[in-house]
Amino acid sequence: MENKQMLMIPGPTPVPESVLLSMAKSPIGHRSGDFSKVMEECTSLLKWLHQTESDVLMLTTSGTGAMEAGMINFLNQGDRVLVGVNGKFGERWGEMAQMFGMEVEIINAEWGKPLDTEVFREKLEGDKNKEIKGVIVTHSETSTGVLNDLETINKYVKAHGECLIIVDAVTSLGAVNIPIDEWGLDVVGSGSQKGYMIPPGLGFVACSKKAWKAYETAKIPRSYLDLMPYKKSAAKNTTPFTPPVNLIFGLQTALRMMKAEGLESIFARHQRLTAATRAACKSLGLPLFAPDDAASTAVTAVAPTNVDAEEVRGVMKKHFDIALAGGQDHLTGKIFRMGHLGFVCDRDILAAISSLECTLQKLGVEGITPGSGIAAAAKVLAES
Amino acid sequence: MENKQMLMIPGPTPVPESVLLSMAKSPIGHRSGDFSKVMEECTSLLKWLHQTESDVLMLTTSGTGAMEAGMINFLNQGDRVLVGVNGKFGERWGEMAQMFGMEVEIINAEWGKPLDTEVFREKLEGDKNKEIKGVIVTHSETSTGVLNDLETINKYVKAHGECLIIVDAVTSLGAVNIPIDEWGLDVVGSGSQKGYMIPPGLGFVACSKKAWKAYETAKIPRSYLDLMPYKKSAAKNTTPFTPPVNLIFGLQTALRMMKAEGLESIFARHQRLTAATRAACKSLGLPLFAPDDAASTAVTAVAPTNVDAEEVRGVMKKHFDIALAGGQDHLTGKIFRMGHLGFVCDRDILAAISSLECTLQKLGVEGITPGSGIAAAAKVLAES
Repeated sequence: MENKQMLMIPGPTPVPESVLLSMAKSPIGHRSGDFSKVMEECTSLLKWLHQTESDVLMLTTSGTGAMEAGMINFLNQGDRVLVGVNGKFGERWGEMAQMFGMEVEIINAEWGKPLDTEVFREKLEGDKNKEIKGVIVTHSETSTGVLNDLETINKYVKAHGECLIIVDAVTSLGAVNIPIDEWGLDVVGSGSQKGYMIPPGLGFVACSKKAWKAYETAKIPRSYLDLMPYKKSAAKNTTPFTPPVNLIFGLQTALRMMKAEGLESIFARHQRLTAATRAACKSLGLPLFAPDDAASTAVTAVAPTNVDAEEVRGVMKKHFDIALAGGQDHLTGKIFRMGHLGFVCDRDILAAISSLECTLQKLGVEGITPGSGIAAAAKVLAES
Repeated sequence: MENKQMLMIPGPTPVPESVLLSMAKSPIGHRSGDFSKVMEECTSLLKWLHQTESDVLMLTTSGTGAMEAGMINFLNQGDRVLVGVNGKFGERWGEMAQMFGMEVEIINAEWGKPLDTEVFREKLEGDKNKEIKGVIVTHSETSTGVLNDLETINKYVKAHGECLIIVDAVTSLGAVNIPIDEWGLDVVGSGSQKGYMIPPGLGFVACSKKAWKAYETAKIPRSYLDLMPYKKSAAKNTTPFTPPVNLIFGLQTALRMMKAEGLESIFARHQRLTAATRAACKSLGLPLFAPDDAASTAVTAVAPTNVDAEEVRGVMKKHFDIALAGGQDHLTGKIFRMGHLGFVCDRDILAAISSLECTLQKLGVEGITPGSGIAAAAKVLAES
């Protein structure tokens, strides 16, 4: 049906009506006092969301632009960096670091499996001359639904003492606890079309004091993505370049909603939706691509063996107006991904799972017990 | 009055209600067939607007990001480049080119005066060894309301034969004729919050075949702002990174409106509004900062001698709900700027001029004939 689509991809995520309506307001001048007030509130709420007293800067970019800024402002050409790669986004950061002339050491894991934290420990403990300048980790690997063990990897980075940890939190921020200051994370990048519940177009970079220290000796040429002008402007509740005023109106509304819900409730909700989705898939005999102990709370990837993943997506879209994501690169056609990130409630999961059950029946998948998926999901939701 | 503000700054410009409502639609997946159709239409209409058969690429950036992409993809470190500087934006491109290690030669003109095309001719004709690789020109200098003579400067660039012309058309695109293919302009950068009639958040870069030839030897490290992935993706009606879906919904609506109005009508309207504004200011004894033969059709800067520019802005805002822009850098407090770019009609100019007249009366400015400003504006509008 027209205008009836339910977005269950891992971004863009569903946007609350109140946010959409905020964005439909006429723009105001970005150098006005009224806009400064909006910036002030957003900056304060962004710090709350990021659990940090340090800077959270707002860029007119996608999440990829934010991650590039997070690298080139704090690392140098020739710097030895470890990049965890177990999916498409980790791969992208490795290529990006290479493009900027860093000496990149890829720490691979199979797509669908979490990064082995022990490899990071060995490399970091073995680096007696402190040559490793950065560790780049994708927290929630959107392409596979794997949540990497950021807390443990970060402990080894802290024990190393010298190098920075640069985190792709694009689909984990607002979906799982990332206490930036408590853990001492240095650079955390994210994008608006994910846990923030607003459309794409804004990138965010949180930067620690240690990162700013590294900035002083960072020499990669940069201008639009140079973070210092953003930091200086943010201190005056403004921006160095014209910001996307209407998206920021949306951000203000969305952050207020998040604040009202509270961080713990937000994280618990994502946990609950993930558990319900996974329980349902198991009951329906649908193999999950990521293991239980490394499950992203943003997206669940399913690797069906007795039905074509693309056919599932097709029926879900055509008959139930639900958009699921497919696999990327070599996973194309092998998995489908169900997003449960941001503005998603329990009812949405029940609707999606019951539609999935019906889809499997339409496709003539054998051996499933009708109602078993929704029963499993409902049990999780009822008990949590 | 709340929600009654009339934006007369040179960006963000007023946004049509239909565009605002397009942006308030729920986002759809950026990798979906439905979104590809939107991209296809936008790309086609962007080429129409730019009067080019070559590429017009869409980036999630401000206009500054688009201009950076326009430089670093086609020029190299050490390249000799001429940068015209007669205002804040020209100055920015000079600093940016320097940041990326280019050998920058600034061609200055007084702020408020147009660039001297003869200096470009001399430099380019004198460059027998073809060392000049780029000429960077701000077409409409937003900070002063001066329209530089792009056509003439470009003729000297064409006569030189080797170097590229890189144009900041941020406030001229859609406000004055820029026949990109006919003139053979190489790189033309712009931003959404100007003639496009949509909020900020999208940058555009038009690139000629000659520019793509230069791309092959361009070595400045870049990733998010590397234009080749945008070109390749655009050919498939998609984007390399998540695009600002809702802004692109707005863009689609705005470009349809522009197509319906027609390029000639759009340019004639901007010409008419500019002429009316300038005639009114002259009648009111308000000195215009830019000369008549170099007047931007996007913004008119006024340098009042018998009243404080900031007081004028204050009364216009407080009593008439009209936002004017102030002066930047050393022009702060010395000029005010009245935007008439994008979604602005004849009635808006009459409202603004009559409010300005009333403002001058409130401020006790002597020697003005009440009604003379609006009479002069009305005459222009009635006769054109």
